[in-house]
Amino acid sequence: MSNSFHPPQRILLGPGPSNVEPRVLQAMLAPLLGHMDPVYFQCMDEIQGLLRSVFETGNRVTFSISGTGGAGMEACLANLIEEDEEVVVCVNGFFGQRVAELAERWGARVLRVEAEWGQPLDMQMVRDTFKKSKARIVTMVHAETSTGMRNPIEELKSLRDVRDAVLIVDAVTSLGAHPVGIDRNGIDASYSCSQKGIGAPPGLAPVTFSERALDKIRSRKKPPRTWYLDIQILDKYWSSDRVYHHTAPALMNYALREALAIIMEEGLETRWQRHERTSRAFVSGVEGMGLEMLVAPEHRLWSLNAVKIPPGADDARVRNHLLTRHNIEIGSGFGTLKGKIWRVGLMGHSSSEANVLYFLTALEQTLREQGFEVPQGRGPTAAREVYKKG
Amino acid sequence: MSNSFHPPQRILLGPGPSNVEPRVLQAMLAPLLGHMDPVYFQCMDEIQGLLRSVFETGNRVTFSISGTGGAGMEACLANLIEEDEEVVVCVNGFFGQRVAELAERWGARVLRVEAEWGQPLDMQMVRDTFKKSKARIVTMVHAETSTGMRNPIEELKSLRDVRDAVLIVDAVTSLGAHPVGIDRNGIDASYSCSQKGIGAPPGLAPVTFSERALDKIRSRKKPPRTWYLDIQILDKYWSSDRVYHHTAPALMNYALREALAIIMEEGLETRWQRHERTSRAFVSGVEGMGLEMLVAPEHRLWSLNAVKIPPGADDARVRNHLLTRHNIEIGSGFGTLKGKIWRVGLMGHSSSEANVLYFLTALEQTLREQGFEVPQGRGPTAAREVYKKG
Repeated sequence: MSNSFHPPQRILLGPGPSNVEPRVLQAMLAPLLGHMDPVYFQCMDEIQGLLRSVFETGNRVTFSISGTGGAGMEACLANLIEEDEEVVVCVNGFFGQRVAELAERWGARVLRVEAEWGQPLDMQMVRDTFKKSKARIVTMVHAETSTGMRNPIEELKSLRDVRDAVLIVDAVTSLGAHPVGIDRNGIDASYSCSQKGIGAPPGLAPVTFSERALDKIRSRKKPPRTWYLDIQILDKYWSSDRVYHHTAPALMNYALREALAIIMEEGLETRWQRHERTSRAFVSGVEGMGLEMLVAPEHRLWSLNAVKIPPGADDARVRNHLLTRHNIEIGSGFGTLKGKIWRVGLMGHSSSEANVLYFLTALEQTLREQGFEVPQGRGPTAAREVYKKG
Repeated sequence: MSNSFHPPQRILLGPGPSNVEPRVLQAMLAPLLGHMDPVYFQCMDEIQGLLRSVFETGNRVTFSISGTGGAGMEACLANLIEEDEEVVVCVNGFFGQRVAELAERWGARVLRVEAEWGQPLDMQMVRDTFKKSKARIVTMVHAETSTGMRNPIEELKSLRDVRDAVLIVDAVTSLGAHPVGIDRNGIDASYSCSQKGIGAPPGLAPVTFSERALDKIRSRKKPPRTWYLDIQILDKYWSSDRVYHHTAPALMNYALREALAIIMEEGLETRWQRHERTSRAFVSGVEGMGLEMLVAPEHRLWSLNAVKIPPGADDARVRNHLLTRHNIEIGSGFGTLKGKIWRVGLMGHSSSEANVLYFLTALEQTLREQGFEVPQGRGPTAAREVYKKG
């Protein structure tokens, strides 16, 4: 084996990770501190404050889990679900389904409210299912990474007219790219990841828990099986008690801190607008080339853009050409959408005009080289128009 | 809040993390790849090969868990333990106790075989407890980080004369510093961390599972609750199936790969000898100053060296002085050993003559400044003698 590893410089336009600003990478080179060093505690405090701003919450229990987004999902479900309780799970994509699977693993009787992948949820059906059940937990994936669908998390809190409930929201592909508004939307528990809208490398999962969520956790008959993801023990390390739990991945947290600081410097509103405009330019370009988006405009994510693969195009061949010839990574479809869509992530540092124009040009060339009739230059031109108008 | 974070350059001589070679940090700056990129798969394959060498095993299922050492512990226990089964757990320190706690969380009826913290286990008692039980799992912490005790993992396999058993070994503070010899010692499942003997930053947990361990996992009546740490699903991502599970912390794995490559360049034997000599020099120095080690010579770790705090010395004040005045981090005692020992880690890149001499000098000055009679220069001189003899 050679002792050197020199991966190519990819433009990361898949479902995450997205590209990382050099400033964030540089932050990881600061001297390593131990997990009980008073200076590291300052870093933790800053991360908590910054995460509260990005989650738009006053929740005290807001911190990063030392694992990826999936660990964040598991942390929320494992701590909140008790054996045999009913949980309403909204499913209109791969990640909604994953939530349902994990909830079942953690002992829930899952009541699925399903819609076709790429189609909006029927909120009346969510309400009816909740009403007929004894569920005290409802979950929704804000940004369904498998389809590019944005689900209406702002409508969840009205369920409390029926009965008090703990509302869990998956913000993996929305946090830092779309407004999540934890407090405004009455969300009790949410998890995300470091490598998408936040713009840090993969490896951490920001989470937040409301007092209502913590009350439910505190009143459990038995602690959750998981020790690594036990929120009450983790809280004793992140709060002023500073009780040792595990050796924090300090360098990853340096990177997260820097990425969050960059978000606040840019400003949340400005950042959301950037993601909105980049996505709009992308859609204009894609439609200018004669291709179609999977999701209806009013439900589209800005962070993850699903393009229908034109009939006759070879999914894998196109993606492979983009990767090997243009160093552009995009995502394939999952499950029922396999071979039917390309998933283009425009998140964090990757959400830029340059990436949209380069991708559209590269896609046009790739399709033409593979014998497809694509109007020359129309995609990039349509995208540029969006930026000109501002 | 200031947007800059400039932690001091610490000499990390605590229970981990240890200092990281610049080469390992540089490896993290290679371009970020997606978790399904063919080039990233090469990196994964290399990590698996290197980890097998360091674990001294041919186990196919050998990879890094995307969490810290604690996640590795949880992965081994959660996958191997089934509801209500008996598990023999050797406990002579904080981490043995943690294994017992986690095993109970995961449904085991734990049969503890205890020794005082800092005292050796009674292997006849382990055998008797195993014999009288129906246990099919026995666990032992190789390097008890809380005391500096090395436990006799090489004696575990003789338990199979009694009955077949899955042997789980905690190698968190031994892997990369002490020989672990997974195959030679008949160990079926083991976990470690990235930030101690391996010399990478904290954030990953190397694990390995034998066919015997996998058979037990495959024959479970129900899958383990944990999805994030489900070894069979993780294996589908690490093996040639490459089934997506979670977004791999790629930069952490670049660092791990580089740290493992450095280990193989140094050579395992040479590396173990370095750790042995550094520890021997440290002990000579400490004893030269008139201080005592907690653990008897034949049971001492090289990686974690527990020094008895001399009567009258102020534990916290000494550690604080070392940290703030000399930028040296060492560990305090846990539980019954709180206030009684200092734990000095000499692991990975931190295991060096320079660190031993600097630490001994700094400790001598600190103790003298705090009114202690310590013979001047005797510690460092005694340590240097060890190196002179080779």
